[in-house]
Amino acid sequence: MPSALDIRIPLDVPAGEQERYRENYRAITRDTGRLMLFAGDQKIEHLNDDFYGEEIHPDDADPEHLFRIASQARIGVFATQLGMIARYGGDYRDVPYLVKLNSKTNLVKTSQRDPLSSEINLVQQAVDLRDRTGLTILGVGYTVYLGSEYEPVMLYQAAQIVNHAHAHGLVTVFWMYPRGKAVKDERDPHLVAGAAGVAAALGSDFAKVNPPKADGKIDAALLREAVAAGGRTGVVCAGGSHVDMQEFLQQLHDQIHIGGTVGNATGRNIHQRSLDEAVRFCNAISAITLDNASVEEANKICTGGRY
Amino acid sequence: MPSALDIRIPLDVPAGEQERYRENYRAITRDTGRLMLFAGDQKIEHLNDDFYGEEIHPDDADPEHLFRIASQARIGVFATQLGMIARYGGDYRDVPYLVKLNSKTNLVKTSQRDPLSSEINLVQQAVDLRDRTGLTILGVGYTVYLGSEYEPVMLYQAAQIVNHAHAHGLVTVFWMYPRGKAVKDERDPHLVAGAAGVAAALGSDFAKVNPPKADGKIDAALLREAVAAGGRTGVVCAGGSHVDMQEFLQQLHDQIHIGGTVGNATGRNIHQRSLDEAVRFCNAISAITLDNASVEEANKICTGGRY
Amino acid sequence: MPSALDIRIPLDVPAGEQERYRENYRAITRDTGRLMLFAGDQKIEHLNDDFYGEEIHPDDADPEHLFRIASQARIGVFATQLGMIARYGGDYRDVPYLVKLNSKTNLVKTSQRDPLSSEINLVQQAVDLRDRTGLTILGVGYTVYLGSEYEPVMLYQAAQIVNHAHAHGLVTVFWMYPRGKAVKDERDPHLVAGAAGVAAALGSDFAKVNPPKADGKIDAALLREAVAAGGRTGVVCAGGSHVDMQEFLQQLHDQIHIGGTVGNATGRNIHQRSLDEAVRFCNAISAITLDNASVEEANKICTGGRY
Amino acid sequence: MPSALDIRIPLDVPAGEQERYRENYRAITRDTGRLMLFAGDQKIEHLNDDFYGEEIHPDDADPEHLFRIASQARIGVFATQLGMIARYGGDYRDVPYLVKLNSKTNLVKTSQRDPLSSEINLVQQAVDLRDRTGLTILGVGYTVYLGSEYEPVMLYQAAQIVNHAHAHGLVTVFWMYPRGKAVKDERDPHLVAGAAGVAAALGSDFAKVNPPKADGKIDAALLREAVAAGGRTGVVCAGGSHVDMQEFLQQLHDQIHIGGTVGNATGRNIHQRSLDEAVRFCNAISAITLDNASVEEANKICTGGRY
Amino acid sequence: MPSALDIRIPLDVPAGEQERYRENYRAITRDTGRLMLFAGDQKIEHLNDDFYGEEIHPDDADPEHLFRIASQARIGVFATQLGMIARYGGDYRDVPYLVKLNSKTNLVKTSQRDPLSSEINLVQQAVDLRDRTGLTILGVGYTVYLGSEYEPVMLYQAAQIVNHAHAHGLVTVFWMYPRGKAVKDERDPHLVAGAAGVAAALGSDFAKVNPPKADGKIDAALLREAVAAGGRTGVVCAGGSHVDMQEFLQQLHDQIHIGGTVGNATGRNIHQRSLDEAVRFCNAISAITLDNASVEEANKICTGGRY
Repeated sequence: MPSALDIRIPLDVPAGEQERYRENYRAITRDTGRLMLFAGDQKIEHLNDDFYGEEIHPDDADPEHLFRIASQARIGVFATQLGMIARYGGDYRDVPYLVKLNSKTNLVKTSQRDPLSSEINLVQQAVDLRDRTGLTILGVGYTVYLGSEYEPVMLYQAAQIVNHAHAHGLVTVFWMYPRGKAVKDERDPHLVAGAAGVAAALGSDFAKVNPPKADGKIDAALLREAVAAGGRTGVVCAGGSHVDMQEFLQQLHDQIHIGGTVGNATGRNIHQRSLDEAVRFCNAISAITLDNASVEEANKICTGGRY
Repeated sequence: MPSALDIRIPLDVPAGEQERYRENYRAITRDTGRLMLFAGDQKIEHLNDDFYGEEIHPDDADPEHLFRIASQARIGVFATQLGMIARYGGDYRDVPYLVKLNSKTNLVKTSQRDPLSSEINLVQQAVDLRDRTGLTILGVGYTVYLGSEYEPVMLYQAAQIVNHAHAHGLVTVFWMYPRGKAVKDERDPHLVAGAAGVAAALGSDFAKVNPPKADGKIDAALLREAVAAGGRTGVVCAGGSHVDMQEFLQQLHDQIHIGGTVGNATGRNIHQRSLDEAVRFCNAISAITLDNASVEEANKICTGGRY
Repeated sequence: MPSALDIRIPLDVPAGEQERYRENYRAITRDTGRLMLFAGDQKIEHLNDDFYGEEIHPDDADPEHLFRIASQARIGVFATQLGMIARYGGDYRDVPYLVKLNSKTNLVKTSQRDPLSSEINLVQQAVDLRDRTGLTILGVGYTVYLGSEYEPVMLYQAAQIVNHAHAHGLVTVFWMYPRGKAVKDERDPHLVAGAAGVAAALGSDFAKVNPPKADGKIDAALLREAVAAGGRTGVVCAGGSHVDMQEFLQQLHDQIHIGGTVGNATGRNIHQRSLDEAVRFCNAISAITLDNASVEEANKICTGGRY
Repeated sequence: MPSALDIRIPLDVPAGEQERYRENYRAITRDTGRLMLFAGDQKIEHLNDDFYGEEIHPDDADPEHLFRIASQARIGVFATQLGMIARYGGDYRDVPYLVKLNSKTNLVKTSQRDPLSSEINLVQQAVDLRDRTGLTILGVGYTVYLGSEYEPVMLYQAAQIVNHAHAHGLVTVFWMYPRGKAVKDERDPHLVAGAAGVAAALGSDFAKVNPPKADGKIDAALLREAVAAGGRTGVVCAGGSHVDMQEFLQQLHDQIHIGGTVGNATGRNIHQRSLDEAVRFCNAISAITLDNASVEEANKICTGGRY
Repeated sequence: MPSALDIRIPLDVPAGEQERYRENYRAITRDTGRLMLFAGDQKIEHLNDDFYGEEIHPDDADPEHLFRIASQARIGVFATQLGMIARYGGDYRDVPYLVKLNSKTNLVKTSQRDPLSSEINLVQQAVDLRDRTGLTILGVGYTVYLGSEYEPVMLYQAAQIVNHAHAHGLVTVFWMYPRGKAVKDERDPHLVAGAAGVAAALGSDFAKVNPPKADGKIDAALLREAVAAGGRTGVVCAGGSHVDMQEFLQQLHDQIHIGGTVGNATGRNIHQRSLDEAVRFCNAISAITLDNASVEEANKICTGGRY
């Protein structure tokens, strides 16, 4: 894993921001080069579907649950909208934040209209919040729907966001999702690899992709093409839907050690649990991601043991 | 109810505006944390339908009726368009105002085209009016139609409005309405909760939602999911269509004490009455909202008694 | 009729421009509070249909005809596009002007596409022309098509125009026309009243509406709802299509004295006549509008007598 | 023909630019008030259709052919895109230029989509090029497709261009073409007159129209309505498709002396010939336009004689 | 081939940037007036299709492969997105770069929607990167889809890019592709010539076109019309799909010596090979392009010999 000196600073980070970029990169990867991103942008993305329902712990009904987890668990960064950070950040100053700059609800389906998730906050607003409050804002995030009829809007905003974020020493994470009427199989490994490559061409530091599938099944080895296509842009994998914790950790371990990813972005799989369980699960994920822990060791963390 | 010290100031309010934001928040909630918003934006939203007709008192035909009520009744804030405030505000300097920043007519139905209500005035213009005239402008309002094909435009404007309003110490109230071809049931409690959660993610101080229904019936308990999803964003409920005053007050009481809302936004139900009756009804609503009055006590105010 | 002191200056007129606004308002209403607007924006709106044809006097073929009338007749203000004012205004410096800021041709019908009339000149350009040349530019005008699918564009531009115009002491006149696939009856009195109310909510000083009809017939009493809905926004009525002069004057008289309007906006009905007849008819209209002349007196002016 | 003192300077030309505007107007009309515009914008408008083919002289295949003609022939102004002027203008400093600010190809037909020709260069860029290089840039040009569903875009850009061009002392020429699904007969004399009137309302100095037709036949007298409608905006006529030179000159003579136009805009009819023939034909056109030469005299110039 | 003094500097290059433009032009053509452009923008344009698959060497899976080739082979310039240059450029400072300013994926086909490739980075951002880092950024590139319903957007951006690029001394290369529902035959020689002519009218320094075909067959002589239409805008030809190296070199030789092109733009045909073979093939292409080498000599370079 990289020492601080190994961090390659992209050239669009100006001299005066290079030290900050390096520190942000170190912080977001906890000096490991690996990213454990706790995703909490679903209040717009999925409305209340991820926060309230039969299989969801009541703790999750309150948005503050996300901040409690982010504060108590070991994470690389907590991704959510600027409005949420502004509202709760004052009470959770220890949390490392990533401002998710665009979001859309899930109401309009692709069958009705291709997806457009447009910027709702500007990089400059994230920078202003950081600079005025001293909050630990390490980076910004953005979702790109490749293959949407609105792709030109999102490619433009994405490239601009990299440029503006790097200009202020911020790390970028892009959610790269092929989606739209033109996209037949969002999980096709070759297409997922293409998505990682687009993130590289846009200059993003990290690209989150969904786990590719062949014949309808996930297989960590299928990620290798994406990891290669991403080049110096680190590929991390989505945590996906609610599954068995042990299975989840095994998949994550495989993604990293077989697929070659450099981390994960996990949301509802963490926060739909009680605070205590969420923190332990989060820590288990971090152990695998950041410490190269085995699945067995991580499982112990889940069940309350330490390793 | 919160004392001044309990008001949590979001971090997007800069230091130099925090005192003003706190004062505005106290004023708009009359030091109770609860919001009694008198809504008067219908001259665009509903054209003349709310102001002239069989069941409507002739007093309501004149726009000044709204200002007379706002001036004589006890309210938290009077919401209307900037043009109206500029025209009448000079004669009603005692009224606390909230500038409704977007509006659309009801002519184009969702079956023809999904709703787009776009900004017609900018936060800066509300700020300029306040700063130049000394009017008591406490906040700004905005309607978001979630699930509309134009949702990206409104999410963007909404997030920007929170940022700009807070930058100038103004309180924000968002009308959160799921609407569009993709929305099958606007009153679904889970969807209404999602709408409240979006307001939270956008960073708004208050979210006005329509009363949720299950099996076609309203039930104040259905609001609890929305109130939880809103978190620190206060959820207030729409006053809805013209109903019996007593029934209205009972519903409002239930919304607050069963549903957990922190207030109401009521418009035509107030202003379609004669000035005298409107003021009394308004005061009844305020008694429940701001003073925790019982329905009985409030009814007395309606009928002209005091409690 | 109002003395200068009675003019209510809206609050979006800054202190430094209030005297100018008051003077402009006095001038445009010729100290009567009533508006006689001579409309000459049809070269874009109706192409050459209003200027050349069987029933049209040859004088009208030349655009300068409009300026000759405006210069020789007694009017409140002459409304036309900035380009026209720039071209002819140097030779007609005595004419009071209102810059019509948007225009569209009549080629694309509503059955093909809903109407969009977008700004072609900015308030600032009208202000610059006024300030640089000393022309008497008293106000600006704008058409809003309520119920069009492009309504959001026009509501935005309209609200901005009021704000910018008042910021520079200019009076605003809005043409408020319900039109589009969603509009079944443009002349419905309740809808026309709604249109007047929108102008009030936008903060315009005057709203021009088309004469409402019930059962296909105009009736000045139908205007009362609109006049009430407009509140402090003065409602003036369109002159409409070419009709008998005497009938026209009777209708105008009824609009004012029965309907409660504060003036008229008349175009082709004036300029399709020879210069001499146009001037006399214009003066007759002004006599009714500005002097409370009787129809009989006005008719005398038409026929060349004086009263 | 006007002396310099007769040139009416529109009021949107600021005092500091009036002398330049007058000089530009004199130069573009060669002190005659008449315009001989050599149109060379077809490389975008018609792709290579006008420059290469069976009836076209090989000289025309090279874009420099246009500049050679413009340099050697007697013209009022040569209209082409800024990119062309920037590329060749250094070698053709004697040519008077007009920057054509918008252009589209002919690939998308009206049956597929209504025409939109949007600005590709800004007035300011033409001004910068003039001021930095000392090139003789006398004016700017723009095409308006009236009746297109994109008409609002073009009316806006057109009105802005007049304002900006006059602000910098530049003369404007507008190509006024009714076109779109809503336009049944582009050559209808009444519609062509309407187009000329729109140019007047936009404030353009010149309007180029296509020759109107009645019953499918051109007739110079049909132009009179357009010339009247243009008022002080000079109407010039399109040179049209490749026809017999003598016939062309007769038509031009008729347009001016019967129709009342003040010039012509001719492109492919000139440049599809050999350099020598093109120059002679160009000079013949100029003789009629600028010198009131007879058709006979002009024909002599075509055949190489002088008159 | 031109000496430095022969380079014609377009007039939109200001005096202070002329020396830089001349140096950039010399560098990009390696003092020959010919352009050997190594195209590496396919990570967005073609996703991972060009980088991973049966016929593709594994070296190509890693984006750095492109930089290794660009660094080790003899090229005029390496074209790729700004994000890629920012990420890898620090380790490949010897490479001459051209920033490709727009890109789209190949997911949405023309049958679904006409192509729009919109700017993702601005000329100013390329300039800033150059000026801050000292990287050798010689120019910018842009793709124009003529005949697309979005043509107006791209013509505008293209003309603006020439203006801004030249203002900063940068050379421009435009990919000129007729494409859209309106385009029946993208390879039609007359249409390809039209595309070259548009690039000339836009003022670009170079235009890349696809090899025209007659009766479905390419023929270098068909390029002559395009080369003529381009005028002083140098026409270079696309390298096209993966073909036999020798055949490729023969075609290139014919394009230059029969068709009159001034170079080539080649991408996947180079980088889908192993590093060693790619470098040799690249050098072979450069030998033909820059040194007027024969096909035989170039083939020797491919096979590892020198000539």
